[in-house]
Amino acid sequence: METIDGVRFDVLSLDCPSRPVLQRIGDKWTTLVFMILKEGPRRFSVIRSSVQGVTPKVLTQTLRALERDGLVNRQIYAEVPPRVEYSLTDLGVSLLGPLETVRTWAERNAASILSAREDYDTGTDDPT
Amino acid sequence: METIDGVRFDVLSLDCPSRPVLQRIGDKWTTLVFMILKEGPRRFSVIRSSVQGVTPKVLTQTLRALERDGLVNRQIYAEVPPRVEYSLTDLGVSLLGPLETVRTWAERNAASILSAREDYDTGTDDPT
Repeated sequence: METIDGVRFDVLSLDCPSRPVLQRIGDKWTTLVFMILKEGPRRFSVIRSSVQGVTPKVLTQTLRALERDGLVNRQIYAEVPPRVEYSLTDLGVSLLGPLETVRTWAERNAASILSAREDYDTGTDDPT
Repeated sequence: METIDGVRFDVLSLDCPSRPVLQRIGDKWTTLVFMILKEGPRRFSVIRSSVQGVTPKVLTQTLRALERDGLVNRQIYAEVPPRVEYSLTDLGVSLLGPLETVRTWAERNAASILSAREDYDTGTDDPT
């Protein structure tokens, strides 16, 4: 639990403001978008083709939510046609470390989890 | 990207097995349940009262999914009435570190994010 300016943040608490933040981080597309933007500013079309399986609508919603959270910056260049690039803000960059630890764990332990699922589904795990 | 037994795990890839794993970790209740179980085995009723806002149905689904993933163990004690306790498996314990870094970040930066949201919603941030 963190205390900032006398306010205690506790994710277990229903009305704690850190809870929606945790949910934003946990969003299925957030981590994937971060993995692209950590390399530098990227255009929408580039992000879309890099994050496999995301629809334009959902990617737009995700980027807008991240921009609203102050994690991603949207920069418009006055060209013809206008060029729009997305990049991580300083706050966004500070989230890279935590996200990387989760991502690394996921990639490293995916095989164990898939194996556990198979055992569970075939009932070899727990006869009760 | 991790390579295990010659298989490359890459979360950005649509069919990578690490992607559903990442989504499980990102589930809004997973982190909260882990914060309870890291203290030791707990009964359903105790978890429920500790994780504010979760319904019995959703908590049941969450625990079952975590059990299926091999992250949580369900132990039944032959008492009258039977006692059921949930605890983290070794695999679950290995996930505690990554989850803690995310949780700490969320609690530490919740205020910045809430402030960014306010700026965004009142339009003081970006007039475009």
